[in-house]
Amino acid sequence: MEIIQSVKNPKVQLWRSLRDAKGRKQSGSFLVEGVRLVREALLSSFPVQEVLLREDFQADPSLTPLLSGGFPVYRLADHVFQSVCDTKTPQGIAAVLSVRTLPLQGGALIALDGIQDPGNLGTIIRTADAAGMNGVLLSPDCADLFSPKVLRAAMGSVFHLGFSFPDQLDRALQNLKEEGFSILSSQLDGEPFFSRRDVHSSFVLVIGNEGNGVSDPVRRIATHRLCLPMAGNAESLNASVAAGIMMYDLMRFPS
Amino acid sequence: MEIIQSVKNPKVQLWRSLRDAKGRKQSGSFLVEGVRLVREALLSSFPVQEVLLREDFQADPSLTPLLSGGFPVYRLADHVFQSVCDTKTPQGIAAVLSVRTLPLQGGALIALDGIQDPGNLGTIIRTADAAGMNGVLLSPDCADLFSPKVLRAAMGSVFHLGFSFPDQLDRALQNLKEEGFSILSSQLDGEPFFSRRDVHSSFVLVIGNEGNGVSDPVRRIATHRLCLPMAGNAESLNASVAAGIMMYDLMRFPS
Repeated sequence: MEIIQSVKNPKVQLWRSLRDAKGRKQSGSFLVEGVRLVREALLSSFPVQEVLLREDFQADPSLTPLLSGGFPVYRLADHVFQSVCDTKTPQGIAAVLSVRTLPLQGGALIALDGIQDPGNLGTIIRTADAAGMNGVLLSPDCADLFSPKVLRAAMGSVFHLGFSFPDQLDRALQNLKEEGFSILSSQLDGEPFFSRRDVHSSFVLVIGNEGNGVSDPVRRIATHRLCLPMAGNAESLNASVAAGIMMYDLMRFPS
Repeated sequence: MEIIQSVKNPKVQLWRSLRDAKGRKQSGSFLVEGVRLVREALLSSFPVQEVLLREDFQADPSLTPLLSGGFPVYRLADHVFQSVCDTKTPQGIAAVLSVRTLPLQGGALIALDGIQDPGNLGTIIRTADAAGMNGVLLSPDCADLFSPKVLRAAMGSVFHLGFSFPDQLDRALQNLKEEGFSILSSQLDGEPFFSRRDVHSSFVLVIGNEGNGVSDPVRRIATHRLCLPMAGNAESLNASVAAGIMMYDLMRFPS
């Protein structure tokens, strides 16, 4: 197999562009790095455009059969491979996929209203998956789901959950409310979370921006405004920790 | 007030050294940055050695009375102040404190067994405080509690909780077990967390290293080996999210 030696190769230029939101938008593609994420991608229903291997990369026997799926596989010189990766010490394998997501369905949803830290966004998605939730609504001012940092923190959950990207989160939630969903806004001036009542079996938990919380239009249409109790002198919780505590509690006691 | 203009000033050299574990150890001091943390420090029982202000810093009326506490207050030129801070855009106030902690007491404890990421360590401590827990045991291979990143993530909880730094975590836990504490080891091959039984009102929840989990000696002496259930295809939870879910559940249902 020929090894791509130059970062000026047009394909390499394209792959490099996928590190930025603009490049991903122009090509409609995104790139995942590392053995674990690539394996998940190859096993998923997401269309794989191509797989990139560093010249010295040896696929283990369980990965090899997944690499003959009808898409091109390229070998890249070390420095070329490094140049397309976001991680400092890449594992030697990456895959380019078409931007898409599974459709939003199911009755246990989370809505992220302006979560801008990629680590928080990815961690909340990973936790939603672990808690058994079904899908995620993302407001337009959230971090980009397909950015390398979000994908890394989400650890494959982007392939498991349904997603929706409404232009106006409050309208999307209004529609769900009319379908019978409870809309739970988490906010510091809310009622005690663990004493909540009358939450329907279909619900959306809304987590707001790290600094400003849930936006006013969403607060207005919420059926429940809830706050995790805090003991001691602590003033707040990290957004992804608070989301995790609430999601696990809701999934155990959907009331 | 004279303004310190040179980074070669011996005091400045000392303050700069507090960004590293070695410097903190040599001087027995640590430095906190920002209005919120400095306010908490000044209101705490921790001995304040000195307060540092950037030349243009204006204390608000609620902070001013706290600044006349019998310790020196220095004004630093902008670039000098920046050089002692770990944050990129400092708020203009910092305080140097003697390394100490409140004693470990109470019946709801968390033990951190090799938590090496400063963000995780600080976030778990902040969450323990919010959940109403009393104290934290730290194994020798944890990140340094007094490092700037940990202090930032812990958001003042270092002033609220008791701490202990045993040379051998397993021995310290063995002693607590003999005092009647339940020792709860969180591990991926444990029993389902939410079905746990016979947890005493005094307990220690042990959270292990991000990659390797709880160490073998600690697993051996645990009274309970527990795992958070995970639905879907998720493989693991972020350490600080998992700790938060377990702490909040334990504090609501101490069984």
